[in-house]
Amino acid sequence: MSLLLAMTGWHVEDWRARFKALLPDMPIVTLGEPFDRRSVHYVASWKHPEGSLAGLPNLAAVFSLGAGVDHLFADTRLPDVPIARVVDPDLTTRMSEYIVLHCLMILRQQRRYDAQQPQKSWDDDRNQPAARSVRVGVMGLGELGQDAVHKLKVMGFDVAGWSRSPKAIDGLASFSGSEGMAPFLARTDILVSLLPLTPETRGTINATLLAGLAQDGRLGGPFLVNAGRGGLQVEADILAALDAGTLKGATLDVFETEPLPAESRLWTHPAVTVTPHNAAMSEPEAVATLISAQIRRLEAGEPLEHVVDPARGY
Amino acid sequence: MSLLLAMTGWHVEDWRARFKALLPDMPIVTLGEPFDRRSVHYVASWKHPEGSLAGLPNLAAVFSLGAGVDHLFADTRLPDVPIARVVDPDLTTRMSEYIVLHCLMILRQQRRYDAQQPQKSWDDDRNQPAARSVRVGVMGLGELGQDAVHKLKVMGFDVAGWSRSPKAIDGLASFSGSEGMAPFLARTDILVSLLPLTPETRGTINATLLAGLAQDGRLGGPFLVNAGRGGLQVEADILAALDAGTLKGATLDVFETEPLPAESRLWTHPAVTVTPHNAAMSEPEAVATLISAQIRRLEAGEPLEHVVDPARGY
Ligand SMILES: NC(=O)c1ccc[n+]([C@@H]2O[C@H](COP(=O)([O-])OP(=O)(O)OC[C@H]3O[C@@H](n4cnc5c(N)ncnc54)[C@H](OP(=O)(O)O)[C@@H]3O)[C@@H](O)[C@H]2O)c1
Ligand SMILES: NC(=O)c1ccc[n+]([C@@H]2O[C@H](COP(=O)([O-])OP(=O)(O)OC[C@H]3O[C@@H](n4cnc5c(N)ncnc54)[C@H](OP(=O)(O)O)[C@@H]3O)[C@@H](O)[C@H]2O)c1
Repeated sequence: MSLLLAMTGWHVEDWRARFKALLPDMPIVTLGEPFDRRSVHYVASWKHPEGSLAGLPNLAAVFSLGAGVDHLFADTRLPDVPIARVVDPDLTTRMSEYIVLHCLMILRQQRRYDAQQPQKSWDDDRNQPAARSVRVGVMGLGELGQDAVHKLKVMGFDVAGWSRSPKAIDGLASFSGSEGMAPFLARTDILVSLLPLTPETRGTINATLLAGLAQDGRLGGPFLVNAGRGGLQVEADILAALDAGTLKGATLDVFETEPLPAESRLWTHPAVTVTPHNAAMSEPEAVATLISAQIRRLEAGEPLEHVVDPARGY
Repeated sequence: MSLLLAMTGWHVEDWRARFKALLPDMPIVTLGEPFDRRSVHYVASWKHPEGSLAGLPNLAAVFSLGAGVDHLFADTRLPDVPIARVVDPDLTTRMSEYIVLHCLMILRQQRRYDAQQPQKSWDDDRNQPAARSVRVGVMGLGELGQDAVHKLKVMGFDVAGWSRSPKAIDGLASFSGSEGMAPFLARTDILVSLLPLTPETRGTINATLLAGLAQDGRLGGPFLVNAGRGGLQVEADILAALDAGTLKGATLDVFETEPLPAESRLWTHPAVTVTPHNAAMSEPEAVATLISAQIRRLEAGEPLEHVVDPARGY
């Protein structure tokens, strides 16, 4: 019975060492070496090559090495076994750092001061809108969205949320489904996206959505912060809205293509802040510990935690 | 019985209109017009000219139009009457926005990404220290310091505080007095200053203090955020520490001379972020409302709130 590490872009030997330390009795194999496909009971994957998990007759579970599972469902030959993802308080904390940081940079007009500083210009209009007068709308009220909502509220923002199923969260104006979208957008000055990428959510952040954002807010126009997945956004539509002035700024951690290609205008647009998909990096030690604990649960006959629903795609 | 508005740099007629609306029966006079000095029972001041409050025989109280009172005690001829300052939840919220924003910008290496973006460079070391591994030290645990401490803790930082008198704040490593300074600095990666300016605190942020900050932290060196008063800092010492690399960065809202003179190297130093003394602007309406309520308290024979101690200077 072995654990298969199936990843691209990451250092597989570092992961082997981590799992070896945590699961000393478990043989650990990798895609790059010969192994007995019947021995594989578990897979830990990050962007495994299409089809590389087919033909594993004794597979019991696939673990995503990150919070998202879109990289798994992108494989049309993904085996039909339970799939679990990472839910980790450290990762959640980091995502909320990112969301609160960028909402505060927008609220406090940090880019205005960044531009003034080299001009040695002491602003003569030093007033700022209060956080309570700025409406943040968080799309996605899961592990990450709910923590972000809580911390944005602590900072004083006027926060609402949008999700697939209706939510009752204390003190939160909450909207759901396609009928909830228009009223949610109409009261949003800063749109925060923490949605998973699924067939339903792909391309959500498009011209139609952007046209629905509030134009009557205290920031002189709406802003977008996307730290979910690049596939959620239509970058041509975002750039068009920025150029038209109907979107006042965008902070993007994720992109249609990553790394963001040099020819993308997002790199140089004055109203765009770009970060290299590191809003919330999983700590490898923590991830390996979580997955090892999941494997021990299965071995002890206990149910898996944080199982995703293939029908929903998240 | 009248209220004297004594200010420089602000629009006195706007303030007259605000107070007139709130205190319709109270005559309101200003320094720039003739008035009967015996009629003045109350003064609302922001940086009144030296000596301009002397010779007001019936003066009962002086109100600072802001949270700080250093501008009042700078007047060697300040009358010996009770002095009250502004304590306002809106102002406190704004200051915490500023402190959390700049601590997160430091934690999340925002300046690194700001520098990389025009280079179209996708960072290849995308790891970030966790907030819990970064030690913030807040100097000044008054109205503003305590709220900042709370919100920094919500964001996950490892927070300690330093004040004149010992404090017992839940979950806060707290230090006090001159003997508490060295251990406090030694565990500080980001030093946040929210002290008032008094004879005791003037020049506190000098070469000796900066040399005491932690050099063993996760940020590669200590950072300074000063949003208290410019007189707390010795700018030549800050620049020398930045040049020597013993201080890794500084975010300054306040300066020895304001507006910051064009010849100051703080404008252009790559490790310095400058804002124009607007970390927390009082909302004029809220300030006028608070002071009007204080005047009504006095007229009703009730005690003043938020009285400062001239012996301490805050
Ligand atoms: N940039 C980064 O560094 C980074 C790091 C980690 C994660 N992420 C991304 O963040 C995503 C969210 O993570 P999470 O842990 O919060 O996920 P989660 O717990 O599964 O929550 C997903 C949320 O999105 C909502 N949702 C899903 N499909 C929807 C739809 N069609 N319409 C409306 N709402 C929909 C869900 O609604 P219900 O509540 O109704 O189910 C839920 O509230 C991950 O999938 C990943 O892509 C990015
Ligand atoms: N940049 C801006 O926009 C802005 C806006 C508003 C205010 N401010 C500044 O922020 C300052 C603080 O405001 P606040 O409302 O928090 O004041 P506060 O409630 O009076 O608190 C002052 C704190 O500083 C501590 N302190 C005073 N002298 C000290 C000394 N010699 N050694 C050690 N600690 C000392 C006090 O210690 P104890 O607790 O022991 O008394 C107290 O914790 C104001 O005075 C003002 O200068 C700046």
